[in-house]
Amino acid sequence: MGYPETTDAFAITDIKKWSEFTRKELPLKKFEEDDVDIAVDACGVCASDVHTITGGWGEDIPLPLCVGHEIIGKVIKVGSKVKNLKVGDRAGVGAQVGADLNCDNCKADNENYCPNQIDTYGAPYSDGTVSQGGYSSHVRVHNYFAFKIPDNLETTIAAPMLCAGLTVFSPLKRLNAGKGKRVGVIGLGGLGHFGVIFANALGAETYVLSHSPGKKDDALKMGAKEFICTNDKDWHSPYKYKFDILLNCADATDKFNLPDYFSTLKPNGHFHMVGMPDKPLPTLMAQDFMPTGCYVGASHIGNRPEMEEMLQLASKQNIKSWVETIDISEKGCKEAVERVYNNDNVRFRFTLTNFDKVFGKRA
Amino acid sequence: MGYPETTDAFAITDIKKWSEFTRKELPLKKFEEDDVDIAVDACGVCASDVHTITGGWGEDIPLPLCVGHEIIGKVIKVGSKVKNLKVGDRAGVGAQVGADLNCDNCKADNENYCPNQIDTYGAPYSDGTVSQGGYSSHVRVHNYFAFKIPDNLETTIAAPMLCAGLTVFSPLKRLNAGKGKRVGVIGLGGLGHFGVIFANALGAETYVLSHSPGKKDDALKMGAKEFICTNDKDWHSPYKYKFDILLNCADATDKFNLPDYFSTLKPNGHFHMVGMPDKPLPTLMAQDFMPTGCYVGASHIGNRPEMEEMLQLASKQNIKSWVETIDISEKGCKEAVERVYNNDNVRFRFTLTNFDKVFGKRA
Repeated sequence: MGYPETTDAFAITDIKKWSEFTRKELPLKKFEEDDVDIAVDACGVCASDVHTITGGWGEDIPLPLCVGHEIIGKVIKVGSKVKNLKVGDRAGVGAQVGADLNCDNCKADNENYCPNQIDTYGAPYSDGTVSQGGYSSHVRVHNYFAFKIPDNLETTIAAPMLCAGLTVFSPLKRLNAGKGKRVGVIGLGGLGHFGVIFANALGAETYVLSHSPGKKDDALKMGAKEFICTNDKDWHSPYKYKFDILLNCADATDKFNLPDYFSTLKPNGHFHMVGMPDKPLPTLMAQDFMPTGCYVGASHIGNRPEMEEMLQLASKQNIKSWVETIDISEKGCKEAVERVYNNDNVRFRFTLTNFDKVFGKRA
Repeated sequence: MGYPETTDAFAITDIKKWSEFTRKELPLKKFEEDDVDIAVDACGVCASDVHTITGGWGEDIPLPLCVGHEIIGKVIKVGSKVKNLKVGDRAGVGAQVGADLNCDNCKADNENYCPNQIDTYGAPYSDGTVSQGGYSSHVRVHNYFAFKIPDNLETTIAAPMLCAGLTVFSPLKRLNAGKGKRVGVIGLGGLGHFGVIFANALGAETYVLSHSPGKKDDALKMGAKEFICTNDKDWHSPYKYKFDILLNCADATDKFNLPDYFSTLKPNGHFHMVGMPDKPLPTLMAQDFMPTGCYVGASHIGNRPEMEEMLQLASKQNIKSWVETIDISEKGCKEAVERVYNNDNVRFRFTLTNFDKVFGKRA
């Protein structure tokens, strides 16, 4: 067996051994006329991959499973209905590979909230197969969820934008981040670094809020106007009613005194969460929202127009993600997910590369 | 002593005896050139009055205290700088009587979030007096917080709009309730009844969500398109992605399974709270917001333009609050606050009236 029936994948077979990747042929869904096959060249390593394989978001995952949803590669086959891509194109795939595309949510460009959405890995297809991610030789996806990558964006730089980038870009757009707006990005990790970069690129005045004073230099280099250390006593007082948006990219929200953060929002501002920690939020009273009339919420990736706008913006402004590359292999995958899990000097995103070396030249 | 130095007030002197009103002369703030004096003719009874005098929102209240912030009366004196009102006008006052009017929030029509805002009762003035509410003969307020009442709105009908009405009208406006939008009003009490009336008046398709099936008839009479009984098993399933806005007017949010409510919101919809219960919200995960990308928040009354728009809309559409009148007196005040506290057949708002009978004809 092999492509086109299967993909050659680095897979997890046991969540107790979540960093032991085994090379395995995993079945691809039946090829349909809307589908695109991509020979993978690079794949970003997302915190979601780690939450999934460790069972942090739930232990009921279909095994063996190949994760990875920040995928870039070459299009090697397109179905008869595919118009947006052709064989030979460089294309990217993010965290979603399917939706019904005709429900009210889809029609309103909210396919990322479609009740029939299909995740890039671990989701059942109607033909009995399970979607498999990008730590592998090939992916097969509906063309609506495959994106042409602008020529001047390097593969390794663009890959992490496809989930982490879009996850922050979408709420920034929907909350109207831009000229004349102030955005506070909380937590400078993989998501946060894109928060700073894209809020800036959209023209917003951008601040970083972090409990790690050591992140100050990186924050300023990424374009933050100011670094606010939330370990400092009474850190919030000078920033009362300051921000239109707080983009919470932190994983430690359970330890926050949320009313302090809320006090830094302008009236009716949004405290928007894109990190999905395993722990609940601190207890809140309705009254906690009242002094600024603020909102707390979260979102799930973004839609196709937002993905395209983000990639064009990145191309136009020559935006560089801060990426460390790691060669794909059992060892490389292991190192990547363990370092993400342990938050071990991740500055600020990993991209798995050199797929040709293990999978051969597939296109 | 007496007016213009003092107001003749029904006051609480001890929060342990929170329904025992004592008639007392209480000092009015020094008259300034922006001020307006109003001889009170009617005052709505707000749940805030009861939360305050029972110590439910904090036991540290300045005693003796006269509550009431849904005030209508005749203007009997205006300062030299007052332009929006003249002696003889019928004017209303809501839950706010002061702000600095020059901070960024005030300049952005967010005087209801001014850090120097002054509540209608219980707030210290710089001259050492404390603001006193409308269960009394007179109030003295900054003219920015006094509103001419349109001629065709009856005093007893208009009074409860000044706090309860505005409190729901402001978020409905800010969240763009109107034609083509669906609003779910949760809880049909004093706030909720205005939620239905004003969401409807703004052109939104309005639903009532309540755990009391007995409220169905009233909900439909007020203009709700449908009544949803949240006691029914799996009540939320038929309403997935239905509402643009959920306006939560209930006091029992701590008992809600919030993800069920969130599931009825359209993507990026708002669950907006205007009731301020004494108990915290149920524990929430960031993940709970993700399926619909929704927001939870709250607000504090509204601004002057919203108050004026609400009153004009009520005038134009001849909107009637559902009001029971009670004559003002020690006994009347006691009955009113006890029935609000016990939720004893309040359909759906009380207005204290017949002030002339106890205070004489003051204008």
